[in-house]
Formats: sequence, C-alpha cells, structure tokens
Amino acid sequence: MSVVTQSSRQQDAALRRRAAAVIPGGMYGHQDASRLPQAFPQFFERAQGSHIWDCDGREYVDLMCSWGPILLGHKHPKVEQAAAEQRAKGDCQNGPGRVMVELAELLVERVSHADWAMFAKNGTDVTTTALMVARAATGRRKVLAARRSYHGSAPWCTPRLDGTAPGDRENIVLFEYNDIPSAIAAAEIAGDDLAGVIVTPFRHDAGYDQELVDPAFARSLRELCDRRQAALILDDVRCGLRLHEGGSWEPIGVEPDLSTWSKGIANGHALSALLGNDQFRDGAKRLFVTGSFWFSAASMAAAIATLHAHHDEGAIERMERAGSLLRSGLDEQAASYDLRIRQTGPVQMPFLTFAGDKDYERARLFAGTALEYGTYLHPMHNWFLSAAHSDDDIQRVLEATDHAFRAVHEEYGGD
Amino acid sequence: MSVVTQSSRQQDAALRRRAAAVIPGGMYGHQDASRLPQAFPQFFERAQGSHIWDCDGREYVDLMCSWGPILLGHKHPKVEQAAAEQRAKGDCQNGPGRVMVELAELLVERVSHADWAMFAKNGTDVTTTALMVARAATGRRKVLAARRSYHGSAPWCTPRLDGTAPGDRENIVLFEYNDIPSAIAAAEIAGDDLAGVIVTPFRHDAGYDQELVDPAFARSLRELCDRRQAALILDDVRCGLRLHEGGSWEPIGVEPDLSTWSKGIANGHALSALLGNDQFRDGAKRLFVTGSFWFSAASMAAAIATLHAHHDEGAIERMERAGSLLRSGLDEQAASYDLRIRQTGPVQMPFLTFAGDKDYERARLFAGTALEYGTYLHPMHNWFLSAAHSDDDIQRVLEATDHAFRAVHEEYGGD
Repeated sequence: MSVVTQSSRQQDAALRRRAAAVIPGGMYGHQDASRLPQAFPQFFERAQGSHIWDCDGREYVDLMCSWGPILLGHKHPKVEQAAAEQRAKGDCQNGPGRVMVELAELLVERVSHADWAMFAKNGTDVTTTALMVARAATGRRKVLAARRSYHGSAPWCTPRLDGTAPGDRENIVLFEYNDIPSAIAAAEIAGDDLAGVIVTPFRHDAGYDQELVDPAFARSLRELCDRRQAALILDDVRCGLRLHEGGSWEPIGVEPDLSTWSKGIANGHALSALLGNDQFRDGAKRLFVTGSFWFSAASMAAAIATLHAHHDEGAIERMERAGSLLRSGLDEQAASYDLRIRQTGPVQMPFLTFAGDKDYERARLFAGTALEYGTYLHPMHNWFLSAAHSDDDIQRVLEATDHAFRAVHEEYGGD
Repeated sequence: MSVVTQSSRQQDAALRRRAAAVIPGGMYGHQDASRLPQAFPQFFERAQGSHIWDCDGREYVDLMCSWGPILLGHKHPKVEQAAAEQRAKGDCQNGPGRVMVELAELLVERVSHADWAMFAKNGTDVTTTALMVARAATGRRKVLAARRSYHGSAPWCTPRLDGTAPGDRENIVLFEYNDIPSAIAAAEIAGDDLAGVIVTPFRHDAGYDQELVDPAFARSLRELCDRRQAALILDDVRCGLRLHEGGSWEPIGVEPDLSTWSKGIANGHALSALLGNDQFRDGAKRLFVTGSFWFSAASMAAAIATLHAHHDEGAIERMERAGSLLRSGLDEQAASYDLRIRQTGPVQMPFLTFAGDKDYERARLFAGTALEYGTYLHPMHNWFLSAAHSDDDIQRVLEATDHAFRAVHEEYGGD
C-alpha cells in the first residue's frame, strides 16, 4: 500500500504551474481540484477497470468513476470494441449512422415511459432541450425546479450566478425537494404559465446529505403535471443506469413524460439523451436543437454495447453488492473509532458525512487520508461505484478508510 | 461513375421508417435530410479521406466534411493514432490528462490574441460561455449579434423560436453584418449595459449568399469595444483553421478579446474551445461552467495532432488549391450552359447559388443531380473542403457538376 507524499507529486505540481498560465484559474468546473485537499491530483495519466493512476504514477481505487460516466469500469472491453468498430467505419459524418436508430429503439424498449429519443453531447444539452420541449408543447413558460438541485451549467441552471442575467432564470420557480406543499405553492406561482417540473430521482445536491425520494412526493408531482397538462421531467443524468435498467423512478411506479440521460449511458463516451412519450413528440419536433458532434456514431455504438453489457453482467446487482459491502464496512469502522457518521443515498452512489462537521473539515481529512492510502473519494460530493468494483477493491478501500477514520479520530476525537 | 436511383435506396428508406417511430420527426437538427432533395441519404455507413459511403453502398466525394469538422480528411492517420494512444491510457477520468495543458499551450502559441483557453464539447457551449465571460468581466448584460447569424442552438441563439421564451434573448441586440452604422445604433440601444459584440469571421448565414468581412467593419467593432470596454467575441466555430492557422481575422489585423472554436479543431472528435486574452481572464475565472465530458483526454490529443498536421501538411494551401480549382471549374461549366451563378465566400468554404432561383429550386436540382453522379454538396448551406481533397477529387466533382448544370439548363433554360 503506497503512501502519497507531497514530494512525490512533482509531475502534477509542474502541470498545475503550466496550467495556471494558460487556463483561467488553472482549471475550472466540477473537476477543479483546487477545492480538494492539497494532496489530490489535478491531472490523470491512465485508468483501467476500477483503478486509476495519476501523472506521478500513484494508483488508486476509483470511487468517483469520472464523476459518474464510468458505469462498468474504465475501458470495458465490449464497449471499447463496439466504439472502435464503429470508428473504423465512420464517426462524425454528414448524417448519423444506423446505430442512432438502433440506440433509440433500444432505449424505447428499456425505458418504460419512452416512445422516442433524441441525442446530444452534454447533460445540460438535454435538460435545456427538455425545458424547450415542455414549453413548445404547452405554449407556456414556467418550469418548477428544486432549490439547489443541479441540472447543468447553462445560464438557467448553473449554481454560480456570475455571467448570468436575471432573464436567464425568470421562468424557473423553486420548490423544496420532497416537500409537497412547497411544490404546490410553486405551481400556484407559475399559475396558468406552468410548462413543466424538472426533478432528480433522489436529492443529490452537492454539499448536502443525500435524500431518497418520498414516493408520495413523486406521485404528487405526477398528479400535478397531469392536472395541469404540464411535463414531468425526470433528470436522470447523474443516476441513470445506476439504480435500475430503465428509468430511476420505475421501481416506485411513477412515469415521467420526459427524461434526461448522460454520464454513464455510454460508459465514458460523450453522449446524452432526451427520452419522451408521445404526448410530447410534437413539441420535440418543433425545436431546432443541434450540435456538430451530436450525431457522431462511435459514442452511440458505445452506448448500445453499454446497455447490453449492463444487462448481461447484472451491473445493478454488482454495484449494489459492492456498495453494501462498503457501507457496512464504513459503519463498522466509524463505530470502532467512536465517530458519528451519516451514509446517505443509494449504496451504489454513496456519500459519507461526519456529524457536526463544520466546513467539511473532518471530511477533508478523511478524503485526504484515504487518498494517501490509495483510495480516491470526494469529501463533498457523492461517490459512484461501478460494476467493476470487486470485493477485493472494496477490501482495499476499507483498508484506506480505516487509516482515514483513525486520522479523524486522532485530530478531532470520538463522539 | 455510379448513378443513384430511388430503387437503390432501400437501406436508407428502411432506416428512415424505423427512425420515424423512435426519433421525433425521424431526425432533427442540421443533419435532418428531410429538407434536402429526396435522393439524399439520411444515414451514413463509412468515410475515408475525402470520400463517404451511404448505407446502400453508394460512394460520394464529400463536399460537406460533416458540416465542417473534417478538416484534414476522414480518419487522418496521425489524428486517429494520437486519439487511440490517449484512449489506451485514459479518456474520461476524474480530472483532465496532461494533454489539456499541452493543447492550451499550443493554442495560446498559435492564436495571436489568446492568453488562455477553456474547453467544452459543443460550439454552443463556448459561444454561450463567451457571453457569460463578457458579462462577468464587465458587469453588464447586452451583447450585439448580427441578424440571422448562427451562433448555436441554445435558447438565446437558436434560429427557430419554438421552445424559447422572450427572456432568453432580451439581452441580445441585433445589427446588420458589415454595416457600421447599424452596429453603432445597436450599441446605442445597449447603452451603458454593453457587455460585448459577437461576430463571425465572414457572413455565412445559411440560406444566403456568403459575404466576406469588410476590414473597416471589423476595425470599427474593435474600436467600439475598446471605447466601451466591452468584449469583442469572434465566433470562429465554423471557420476556424480553414482560413488561417491562427484566428480568422489575423490576416486583416483585428484581434478579438475572446474567440470560440469547435468543428475542425480535432478533425471530427468532439471538442470546442474558448480562447481569451488577459483582460478577460478574471471574468472567465468567476464562472461555473462544466460538463461530464469536457475534460476527456482523447479528443484533446486529437486536437493537438490536428493542429500539428494542419501546419506540417500545409492544410490551408491544400484547401485553397482544391477550392480554386473547383471555383474556376464551376464558373466555366456554368458559362458553357449559359447559366448565371454566384460563388461566394472563401474558396475553401464554397457556396453556389443560381441567379433568380426562387425557393432554391435550381439549387436543389443541381445538388440532387450532383448526388446522383457521386458528389455530396448542399443546396442551401455553404460547403467545406478539406486538406484531403485532391485534384482527382475535384475532377470527379466537376464531372458530376457538369451533369448537374446540364440538368438545370434542361429544366430551366439558360439566361
């Protein structure tokens, strides 16, 4: 088990110095490591299965999975082969390949609410398009969204207001997740102008404990949208294919009108999808939305292979098994160090916080120590498991987290 | 020379029928072939160099280059090798690869106005981010844009208003391209709230003849932005690397503050870039913009290889040679059939229209006939040449266009 020290981070440090000259702030967006404990690498060299290597040659078990896209493990052989075979024929062409039709058919077959599919590159492309479909179909403008929920980084939804203008979000009305009266009140504010409601499958706001959806809340949103003939939009960008083979609300029996997908859909290849039912097909037809690379064939071939491998390999069960092992192991360790922790969200999208952990100080020490001992996890954002995480991987993770809990205990004491 | 007939389009027709069931309208966006003459294929099977094949096995010389991304020819060996080598290490990871720094350094070296770079996936990502940088840096909101100019398909810029709300574009003030008084008048409307001006290197609006920029107009925009301390944003998404090795206005000596790139920057791999100068670095630092695949390494490795091959192979000169051969050949042919045509724009981004061609009827017959004889070109949108177009390719194109001009002459007569 290797221990990372500052002196062994020379490559990363040199890259950061060069980046500071030619990239604003040295890095930007969700992968900006400057907000992480100092030992975290900013740049990565390679990845295989459930393991990753930074530019200084340090190996880690990967509990972030590229912030979600890696669903079956890095470089899944069948996914990479499918992408390579399509790429050898054609990728970005004057029109899509036949894989676009095959992928749309497969998604419509797998996802119960879906009658049609559209494809794009970013999650934000399809959350934005979903709002446009809702507006085009209803002729109305207001969309309800949960406070602090992340639906992308376009001006209407980016969590930081710099560079946006008030008009960018004048048609977004906020409610509290899992709070039926607040959703009803938001719908009252929208009044006759309610086009839709966008909501994530569970509450996974960064910087907060996760919270599973209350099925009664989901049903109330469905009823609200039925009553007002508005679009219920399930933003499955982060969760899609980690909780269920179809849409993430299928287990609770609530069908959205539109759903948005990206992240894991092609196991790391750049792709997003908007799925919809026939009620919103005409609205979708009326839009002009497009992108130079939206119809590229290789990422669609990768998505088809991902969906098949996901089913054939029992990916959900594998992620649940790894996640359960991890959760119970972490609980035992925390108890052994007399530390009060909360583990929230589905086991395959774990998140751990410490009780009374002002400014995530314990979490940062925990994550930084786990990193030193070869496990990459995030102090303030949910983690992701993949179907490639073996029992041995989880054992290795737990060896690292044992050191990490000990460090927290030594610094802050038990409870 | 093969002739395409309807009866030989069975594969494409079958795919279109299947697509109609699972994709709204059967297809959407700029690659929707339903607006093209009937013989045009919707789906493509493979591509190599300057040639493409549809799903019925028909081969064409490709004069659209995937609507721009293919700059050096499909599957350029050095670009594909660089992407494959990076992919074998890592692509979508928990942070970028070292190629992100190398690419940013290379772009800052190549593009004279640039001190820094940010990367994304779509052209629209970076045009939208450019406006956000301008707003964050200036604390103002209004942005001037040329009427009918295409800057992407987000709600603030999509050419079709369906699904958008008035607030989405309340901060865009329109002017006429190449018209200094109209730009001055638009700036007056923006008043104290002017954040920036976004403009393409030349006028390449779809459905209109192209128009080169008047250098005096470009200089007047620069002076306007200097006077008002607003951002001059050059939208080089479509033109970048086809006109010049650096920014497209470098030959006329006008430097923007920000420039946006995509399309050809990685020869078909999904990538876009925002470049900026130091005056706008702090504004860029303050944004939260990001995407799951924005930091993927393979497309950045492809971009580095594209930039090197572009220089080493004299891509500009090769495109200009092919474009000049094509333009003079088309002029001679049109004259021989007594047809009045206009060829507009730079020779490497050609566009041909017929005089008095109401509703593009002649253009559609011309494009449909050229397609029958093995050349893929567009009746209503500018074409793109690549560095892979050989003299033989242009000769083959001219054989097809000779048939096409004859068909127009037979249907509509000479002038």
